[in-house]
Amino acid sequence: MRRYAAEVSYDGALFRGWQVQPGLHTIQGSLEAALEALNGTPVSVAGAGRTDMGVHARAQVCTFDLPKAWEPARLLLAINAHLPAGVSAMRVAPVPEDFHARFSAASREYVYFLWNASTIYPMLAPYVCWVKNSSAYEWSRAAEACRYLEGTHDFGAFCRAVDRPDDSVRTMFRVRLRQKGNLVWLRVLGNGFLTNMIRIMMGNLELVAKGVHDPDWIKTLLEEGTSRSEGGRTFPPEGLFLWKINYEDSPWTPNKKRYDVK
Amino acid sequence: MRRYAAEVSYDGALFRGWQVQPGLHTIQGSLEAALEALNGTPVSVAGAGRTDMGVHARAQVCTFDLPKAWEPARLLLAINAHLPAGVSAMRVAPVPEDFHARFSAASREYVYFLWNASTIYPMLAPYVCWVKNSSAYEWSRAAEACRYLEGTHDFGAFCRAVDRPDDSVRTMFRVRLRQKGNLVWLRVLGNGFLTNMIRIMMGNLELVAKGVHDPDWIKTLLEEGTSRSEGGRTFPPEGLFLWKINYEDSPWTPNKKRYDVK
Repeated sequence: MRRYAAEVSYDGALFRGWQVQPGLHTIQGSLEAALEALNGTPVSVAGAGRTDMGVHARAQVCTFDLPKAWEPARLLLAINAHLPAGVSAMRVAPVPEDFHARFSAASREYVYFLWNASTIYPMLAPYVCWVKNSSAYEWSRAAEACRYLEGTHDFGAFCRAVDRPDDSVRTMFRVRLRQKGNLVWLRVLGNGFLTNMIRIMMGNLELVAKGVHDPDWIKTLLEEGTSRSEGGRTFPPEGLFLWKINYEDSPWTPNKKRYDVK
Repeated sequence: MRRYAAEVSYDGALFRGWQVQPGLHTIQGSLEAALEALNGTPVSVAGAGRTDMGVHARAQVCTFDLPKAWEPARLLLAINAHLPAGVSAMRVAPVPEDFHARFSAASREYVYFLWNASTIYPMLAPYVCWVKNSSAYEWSRAAEACRYLEGTHDFGAFCRAVDRPDDSVRTMFRVRLRQKGNLVWLRVLGNGFLTNMIRIMMGNLELVAKGVHDPDWIKTLLEEGTSRSEGGRTFPPEGLFLWKINYEDSPWTPNKKRYDVK
């Protein structure tokens, strides 16, 4: 068997989330169906991160094994020929057998987009969270609060309550909120994320931007590991993009020695 | 009666073009229906430019008359509450009675977006023309050819043959083609446009980028006013955006003396 990595982009609104579920139109299910069509027998696809229903991906990464050696450009075309509307493979590369989309990942980057105006361009509406009455928000306060999210913390208060794991400690390498015109975006680079974590971050940062809490309230939420009920709302999925998965050795440099197919 | 101007954005894929047609879902028709719902009686809407089926608008401008004086922010909300998916009013302002979306316009700007790669992000696909096998194109040649399009010329060879008017002379104030990564875009500012003119410009510029013709072939097309059949293909509508309508006195500064409602 030969292992391949693929970078995949999708419009989350057209699927019932990443994870394969019998009878439902999912991204993982669509990829597995496309690969089975090429291969003749079933193929398992492992994703770097499971995105929830409605969440988009600019560059999700997945790995899978095929018995036959494929020229990457041909494999890319063949996969895309079998994928439904709303999902595309953007790149494909052969990788070593021990490379795994999820377990080999060093960090993951998500971006949440928010539209901060009383009207919205129709083309943009499916890809941002539109906050209509936010003209008085002070986003600089939320940007200031982001620094408390950086570092290693127990993010228990930033997880959907029913999904809170025993170990809710994660490391955020970089958390930044920026504004340009009517667009506000939160960019988070971390080693892993809890259920709804970025969407709950947005809800808490919104309370800071609104002036309900001071920026250092974020620090209190982290330190006291308070229950989810004390935080802000969970932002809707449509503003969230899985932006990039980082690996120590990129799968996208197939000419590098480490990734030579043997 | 009081006259208002509205800036309108729409996703062309969801409509049968701008112009009202009985029984068809058009942008002008949707705006007139929304205004009739507010007003109780029919309202005529005049657009700055008719966009063809499938063409998008970032900022179309239209004017209409209402018997009642509206506070602009309230009128904007009321119009949007009655518009269907895919079209939004972005701004509304009272304007003098002699202001007309089309006849008062000093210039119009269109942008054509082209995606120059072997794969495409699904979110981008509805808003660009994807040219899959264009990796060998030299877009710098096309950018060079753009300067021949600037100025006052007979654009007869850049018009859908059956729609060629008696007077096909138009003035292009600025024509620029740029590339950033996989995205290539043509930005054209002119005093008026013939049917499919920008989409035909793209087809002719493509032949230059491909090396079929030299950049100064564009000059020959203009000077000889040759028939449409000698040029390149007509690019599809999905990459085209009506970007901006310019007026000597902007309708969007309602506090300026000229635009005070009497």
